[in-house]
Amino acid sequence: MKELEEKIVREAQVLPGHVLKVGSFLNQQVDTVFLKKMAQETARLFAGLGVTKVLTVEASGISFATAVAMEMNVPMVFAKKHPSANMSGAQLCSPVYSYTHKTTYNIVVSRDYIKPCDKVLITDDFLANGNALKGLMEIVDQAGATVVGCCAEIEKGFQGGGDELRAKGVKVESLAIVESMTDDGKVTFRS
Amino acid sequence: MKELEEKIVREAQVLPGHVLKVGSFLNQQVDTVFLKKMAQETARLFAGLGVTKVLTVEASGISFATAVAMEMNVPMVFAKKHPSANMSGAQLCSPVYSYTHKTTYNIVVSRDYIKPCDKVLITDDFLANGNALKGLMEIVDQAGATVVGCCAEIEKGFQGGGDELRAKGVKVESLAIVESMTDDGKVTFRS
Repeated sequence: MKELEEKIVREAQVLPGHVLKVGSFLNQQVDTVFLKKMAQETARLFAGLGVTKVLTVEASGISFATAVAMEMNVPMVFAKKHPSANMSGAQLCSPVYSYTHKTTYNIVVSRDYIKPCDKVLITDDFLANGNALKGLMEIVDQAGATVVGCCAEIEKGFQGGGDELRAKGVKVESLAIVESMTDDGKVTFRS
Repeated sequence: MKELEEKIVREAQVLPGHVLKVGSFLNQQVDTVFLKKMAQETARLFAGLGVTKVLTVEASGISFATAVAMEMNVPMVFAKKHPSANMSGAQLCSPVYSYTHKTTYNIVVSRDYIKPCDKVLITDDFLANGNALKGLMEIVDQAGATVVGCCAEIEKGFQGGGDELRAKGVKVESLAIVESMTDDGKVTFRS
């Protein structure tokens, strides 16, 4: 999505450790006018595939998943990383290793919210090593439901997670794929 | 909002400790068709007040804040409860005591995302003791910006946080106000 690439070049910051900071418009402050455009593009990419639910993981994935689900007129579900007082009943659970935080955490979704008949579109703000998406796919699998595909707002192509999933036959679409980032802030995209 | 009250009666569960579980449609699985209606009603309640930004706190407040901000065509910002690798620069910070988790945590927003000229609508999924809203108001105050008002999807009226803020002159609107909940699941609303 050319407009997203341009916005990244204009507004993102490259921080040490291959961190692409897009908090000014994408995942802490969210430009909702632009979010709607990204959601429309995502709905177009996955149109006609019978998506019944959009699944993401808290917290920074929630705004994108909400906008996509609104565009597709289906429910949005998010997996929790942090235990909560108002979770009850049977849970679907998968461990996810975070390179950012150097720790493994469990992501959890109530079994009530993903049913075997569901066709699930998995979305997230970032796709890097793909661990979060793999955890979410595992949860859909535990529910006996079907993964229609995965969509990230920004994929870090050089970290390989997206291509690994594509090689397994998963439909992975990312609205922008960063091919390289230099420490002085130059970002190039996959064409 | 009558339709929300009816949905609570039909779909919510009352759990021990005055927990109203609405994860099936409001804050873990989100009924996005209904979310849009709630966002439209919120935009109506705060129309003409010059709102420039919607502020909430992660994680379960994000979907509502996103939908409201989309409806109002302004950015959405969420405060973080959990430290993140991609936060940098000056931060606005306020301690919030959580009765649910019996602990105090800091909520944090980058100073870049709330400016003195901003007129901020604060939203959340629940309003009970009002501690989260007070923390968010403190952050807006630190930024030198103006709080236009607060809106929760569901207020637990019997916990007093909303009325305390109203007594201080804050415009607090809640889409449903629960006046009482019994252990056998009967919920009554403020008329």
